[in-house]
Amino acid sequence: MDLEKYFDRLWPICRSIMGEGTRESLRILDEVMPMDRLTYPTGTKVFDWTVPNEWSVADAYIIDPKGVKRAEFKKNNLHLLNYSSPFRGKISLEELKKHIFTDPDMPEAIPYRTSYYKEQWGFCLAHKELQALPSGDYEVVVDTALKPGQLEIGEAILPGDSKEEIIFSSYVCHPSLANNELSGPLVLTKLYDKLKAMPKRRYTYRFVLSAETLGTIAYLSTRGEHLRKSVVAGYVITCVGDSGPFTYKFSRRSDTLADRAAQSVAKEAKTPWRWERFDPSDGSDERQYCSPGFDFPMGSLMRTMYGKFREYHTSLDNKDFVAFAAMDGSVEEYLKIVSVLEGNEVLKNASPFGEPQLGRRGLYSMVGEVKVSNFVGTVLWLLNLADGTNDLISIAEKSGKPISEVIETAKILKEKGLLVPVS
Amino acid sequence: MDLEKYFDRLWPICRSIMGEGTRESLRILDEVMPMDRLTYPTGTKVFDWTVPNEWSVADAYIIDPKGVKRAEFKKNNLHLLNYSSPFRGKISLEELKKHIFTDPDMPEAIPYRTSYYKEQWGFCLAHKELQALPSGDYEVVVDTALKPGQLEIGEAILPGDSKEEIIFSSYVCHPSLANNELSGPLVLTKLYDKLKAMPKRRYTYRFVLSAETLGTIAYLSTRGEHLRKSVVAGYVITCVGDSGPFTYKFSRRSDTLADRAAQSVAKEAKTPWRWERFDPSDGSDERQYCSPGFDFPMGSLMRTMYGKFREYHTSLDNKDFVAFAAMDGSVEEYLKIVSVLEGNEVLKNASPFGEPQLGRRGLYSMVGEVKVSNFVGTVLWLLNLADGTNDLISIAEKSGKPISEVIETAKILKEKGLLVPVS
Amino acid sequence: MDLEKYFDRLWPICRSIMGEGTRESLRILDEVMPMDRLTYPTGTKVFDWTVPNEWSVADAYIIDPKGVKRAEFKKNNLHLLNYSSPFRGKISLEELKKHIFTDPDMPEAIPYRTSYYKEQWGFCLAHKELQALPSGDYEVVVDTALKPGQLEIGEAILPGDSKEEIIFSSYVCHPSLANNELSGPLVLTKLYDKLKAMPKRRYTYRFVLSAETLGTIAYLSTRGEHLRKSVVAGYVITCVGDSGPFTYKFSRRSDTLADRAAQSVAKEAKTPWRWERFDPSDGSDERQYCSPGFDFPMGSLMRTMYGKFREYHTSLDNKDFVAFAAMDGSVEEYLKIVSVLEGNEVLKNASPFGEPQLGRRGLYSMVGEVKVSNFVGTVLWLLNLADGTNDLISIAEKSGKPISEVIETAKILKEKGLLVPVS
Repeated sequence: MDLEKYFDRLWPICRSIMGEGTRESLRILDEVMPMDRLTYPTGTKVFDWTVPNEWSVADAYIIDPKGVKRAEFKKNNLHLLNYSSPFRGKISLEELKKHIFTDPDMPEAIPYRTSYYKEQWGFCLAHKELQALPSGDYEVVVDTALKPGQLEIGEAILPGDSKEEIIFSSYVCHPSLANNELSGPLVLTKLYDKLKAMPKRRYTYRFVLSAETLGTIAYLSTRGEHLRKSVVAGYVITCVGDSGPFTYKFSRRSDTLADRAAQSVAKEAKTPWRWERFDPSDGSDERQYCSPGFDFPMGSLMRTMYGKFREYHTSLDNKDFVAFAAMDGSVEEYLKIVSVLEGNEVLKNASPFGEPQLGRRGLYSMVGEVKVSNFVGTVLWLLNLADGTNDLISIAEKSGKPISEVIETAKILKEKGLLVPVS
Repeated sequence: MDLEKYFDRLWPICRSIMGEGTRESLRILDEVMPMDRLTYPTGTKVFDWTVPNEWSVADAYIIDPKGVKRAEFKKNNLHLLNYSSPFRGKISLEELKKHIFTDPDMPEAIPYRTSYYKEQWGFCLAHKELQALPSGDYEVVVDTALKPGQLEIGEAILPGDSKEEIIFSSYVCHPSLANNELSGPLVLTKLYDKLKAMPKRRYTYRFVLSAETLGTIAYLSTRGEHLRKSVVAGYVITCVGDSGPFTYKFSRRSDTLADRAAQSVAKEAKTPWRWERFDPSDGSDERQYCSPGFDFPMGSLMRTMYGKFREYHTSLDNKDFVAFAAMDGSVEEYLKIVSVLEGNEVLKNASPFGEPQLGRRGLYSMVGEVKVSNFVGTVLWLLNLADGTNDLISIAEKSGKPISEVIETAKILKEKGLLVPVS
Repeated sequence: MDLEKYFDRLWPICRSIMGEGTRESLRILDEVMPMDRLTYPTGTKVFDWTVPNEWSVADAYIIDPKGVKRAEFKKNNLHLLNYSSPFRGKISLEELKKHIFTDPDMPEAIPYRTSYYKEQWGFCLAHKELQALPSGDYEVVVDTALKPGQLEIGEAILPGDSKEEIIFSSYVCHPSLANNELSGPLVLTKLYDKLKAMPKRRYTYRFVLSAETLGTIAYLSTRGEHLRKSVVAGYVITCVGDSGPFTYKFSRRSDTLADRAAQSVAKEAKTPWRWERFDPSDGSDERQYCSPGFDFPMGSLMRTMYGKFREYHTSLDNKDFVAFAAMDGSVEEYLKIVSVLEGNEVLKNASPFGEPQLGRRGLYSMVGEVKVSNFVGTVLWLLNLADGTNDLISIAEKSGKPISEVIETAKILKEKGLLVPVS
C-alpha cells in the first residue's frame, strides 16, 4: 500500500463527523481494507447522544469591500467552520468578526474549528489576514445544508484462531489535516494489509474507522457488549505521521496487556519513547473506549501527541509536516506490538525441580565457561520464572531480556518439551 | 472568639494532669464550648494505669544564704517541679542541687519538668541562675499537697446527619506554656465555635480536652468502644500557635481518611507542609488513639512540631513566641480539612458508557477548542474515575486537580444527574 | 577450628563432582562436622539428570618437541581439563591446540575448565605458555579413568526445639581453588562448629556439602519433599574468603525470611553490603534450591561474588588471594543472621489499649524529659507495632531501630509480661 498515493487522494476531501466527505474517504480505503458499514440515521439515540443532521457544503467564501474573495472553502476547507449552518448576506466588518475564528498565537495559520451541536455559521482565518481586513460591508456566502442523513462507521475483521480480539481504532472526520488525522486511517489501513498477509493469527483483529467521539460512542452502543467479552488489547491510532519519537498513552488501568505489550516493545526501541498517563480530559477515542462503563484495555501509540505540536489543528498540519517513512515506521512499531501479543503466553516449566540438563539437549556449552551465553541466560530465566504465573512479557520485564528474545527462546523450549502451555 | 483574650486569662493558671488549675481552665473554655465532664476519682483503674492523687500548690520558693528569694512559684509556675511533693527545711547548697533541674543547653530558660508518678520535690531554674547560687544553707518551702481528688476531662459534641464522627483532641495539663500547650485548647475551642455555626453538618463532631497520656487513656477507657464504631477521622491539635509552616504527622496506618484529607488540603497550600511519619516514641495523644488496640484513623496537624523548636518545654515558650494570627490560620486550615471530609464521597457516573454529551447541559464550550477549559477537565476526570471505587480525594489525587475544585465540580454534576451517590 | 590448617590439607586435593578427591575432602571435614553420606551410583536418575561415571586421575602432562614436560597435573591440578577422558599419543602442535584451553584476558593464569558431560580430553594453560609452545610433535599423557562409581553428598544436622529448619549449603567439587570454592566448605564447617556449641537452638540446622548443580539436584531429589515442609530460611555459602565487603544475593521471591534477616543484619554493618537480585542465569546452587518446583527461601551471603573478581576460576584464586580473618568474619556475619532468625518472632502487646504505664515497671525515666531515651523509644515502637502482624524484623524495619536492640528489648518486655507470643 503506497501511503502517499492514498494520502493525495484523501487530502482534498472535506470530511466531518457525517456526510459525503466521510463516505468518499471510507470508499477509497475500502480498496485496501474492505469495510462493513454501521449506519446511524439522524435522530438515532446513541447512549447519551443524538445523531445530528448531516452537513453538506456547496461553497463558502467572503467578498471584502474591495471585491477581493477571501476565506474560500474551495481553496482550503479549513476556512469554513466545520458544520457551519447556511448564511447569505451583506454585513459590516464588525458583525462579520463575530463569526471569525483565528489563532493569534499562530498568525499565519488557519485554525480548525467545529460547531457540531450549536447551529451557527463561521469562518476560520489566519490572524494576520483578519487584522488586514478593510472596513466596510462584506458579502458572505455559506452555501451549506444541514439535513437528515446518517452517521457511518467502517469496520473490518481479520479472524484468528481465537475469538479474543485486538482492536485498532482511528477516525475519518477531519477535513484537510495531515498528521491529525490522515496519518491515523492510513496507518491503520496499512496495518490491516500487513496483518491480512500473516499466515496464521492467534487473535482476531478488529479495525474501526469512525468519527471521533460521536462515532465511537455510536459504535460502542452497537458493539460494546460484544467487545466487553472479546477485547484483550487495543490501540487508538492517531498522530502517527510526523517524524518525532513515539509517545505511548496508557490505558485507564495503566497495567493492561495493551500497556505491557507496548512497554516491552519500547524497551527494544533505539529512540526512547515518551510516556503519557491516561488522561480523560485530553485525548481521542480512548476517552470513550476507557469510559468507566467499558474500561477497555486500550492505549494509544502515537508519535508527537495531539496538542504537543504547534501545527496541531491548523492549516500547517499539512503534507509538508508529515513523512511517509514515519508512517511506515509507525506501522512497523504496531507490528512489533502485534508480534508480542501473538507470542505472549503463560508457560510452565515441565521439569521444575532443579535445572533440567540443558547440555544433552544441545542448549548448553559442553565446556564449563565462566559466563553463560546470552541465549543460555534467557533459557535459564525462562525455566526459572515459568511457574504458571508469569507471562512472557513479565519474564522479559523481570529478567531484563528483550521480549523478542524471550518469545523466540520460549518457542525453542516448547519444541524441546521443557516449557508447556498452562491450559 | 478573641483568642488573645482567652489566652491572657488562661496563661497564669498552674495546670497539671489533675487539680484546680485544670478545672478552672475548662470552666473558662466552657464559655465558648460548653463541655460535659468525665471524672475519674483518685485510685480509679484506667486500663494499665491508676489515677493518682490530686496536686495543689499554695506556694513554693527558696531563700538563699543571702536572704534572696528565688525560684518563686508565684512569679513563674514552671519553677516548681510539676507534682512536687511538699517539703520544708533548711539544707545545704549541695543537698539542694539534687532537687534542681536546669537545661545547660539553654542557660537563660527555666525548663518544664514533671514527676507525676514518683513522689519527690524539686525546682526548675535557669542554668545560669544555678551556677550563680552562693554556697551556704537554703531555706526551702514547697507548700503543696497531694490528696485524693479526681481527674477531669471535658467533652463537647456537635451532632451531624450521620452518627459517624470526626474527633478533635487536645489537652489542658501544662502550666504557663504558650505554644505547647495553650495554642491547642484555644484552636480546638475556636474550631468548635466555627463548626457550631455551620448550617448543616454531615458528620458528628467530638471535641476532647484531657490531660495528655493519662487523661486520654482514661477517656479511651470510657469512650474507646464507642469510638471504635464511630470515628472516621480525627486529629490531635497541639503546637498550632507559632508562625512556622504546617507539619502533619500521619496516623499509624498512614493512609487513613484523616491522612488523605490532610494531604489533599496540603496540595492547595501556599507554603509547603512538612511531613512526619507516625512515631509512637515521640508524640502526643495520637500515641494513645493509635495504640494497637484502637488504631484509630487519627493524625495531627501542627505548625512547628514539639521538640523541633528550641523554646519547647521552657519558659521561652511564652506569649512572645506565639502569634494569634497563626492560631487563626490553624483554625482555618483545620476548617479546610473539615470541608474536605464533609464533601468527600464515593460517586458513580450515571452515564458511564462513553462520555455524556456535556454541550447540551451547558458544561462544554460549543465550539471545539484545542484544549478544554480547566472546569471541563475536572468534569471529564470526575466522569471517568467515578466508577464507584474512587472517593473524591482519590479522584483529586489521580487527576492532579485541587480537591476544592473536585468537590465543587462534583456538586454541579450531581445536580445535573451525571454523578450519583453510591448507596 | 583453625581454618588455615584445614585449608592447607584440603588445597592439594583434586576434587570433582565425583571421585576420590571429594571423598577425601569430606573425610577431612568430618573431623569437625561428622556427616552422613547420601550416595548415588553411576546411572542413577536424579530428576532430569543421570549420574555419570566417576573420574580418577593417575597423571597427566605434555612433553614438547624439545623434551620439556609441561602442563603437569601433579604440579597444578587445574592443568587438566576436569573430567578429561584418557588419551595417550604423539600429535602435532596444531592438533594439540584443539585440546588446549586458555584465557587470553589473563595471559599468566591457568583457567579452570570442566567437561563433565561430553567425553573429551584437554589441558588448561596460561595463554602466555600456549603462545610460546615450539612447533613439532608433542607427547600427550592423560592417564585418567571414567568408571562406574558414585556421587557422594555430606549432610549434618543440629537439632533444635522446632522441626523447622535453617539450611546452609556449600560444595566440594572444585580442584585447587581457594575463594571459590574452599572458603565455602570451610566457613560452613566452622559455622557448624559454632552452632553446635549453642546451649539452646530454636531451629534445626542442616548443613550440606554437595557437588554444585548435579550434587544439589541429586540431594533435592532425596530431600526436596522433606525440605519443602521444613525450611524457613537458608543460604548458599560460597566466595566468602576474600577481603571484600559482603554481597547478598536475594532469594527468588526476594522477600523471604532469609532475605529479611540478611537485610536487617546489613543495616548494622560498618561497611555497606552489596546487593544482587536473584538471577537464575548466573549463580551457584540457589539456582537449584530456588528452581520453581521448590522456590525455597534461600539466598546467599558472599564477599566478592563469583564472576566479579578477576581471579575467579583461574590459578590466581589461591591462598594469596584469600584471608583467614575474612573467613572468620564471614562466619561471624552468618552467626548474626542466625541470631536474628533465632530471635525473630511475632509478638502481641498484652496491654494494647493506650500505652501501658512504663514508669511503675522501671522502664521509663520518672522525671518527664524532653526526649525519651533510645531504650524507651524502642519499647514504645515495639508496644505499638506488636499487633500480631509484624515480626521483629518488620518492627526493626519500620521503626529504624537496629534489629539487635529490637530483639533484646522484646526479650525484656516479654519478661515484664508486656509482650506475649502469638500462638
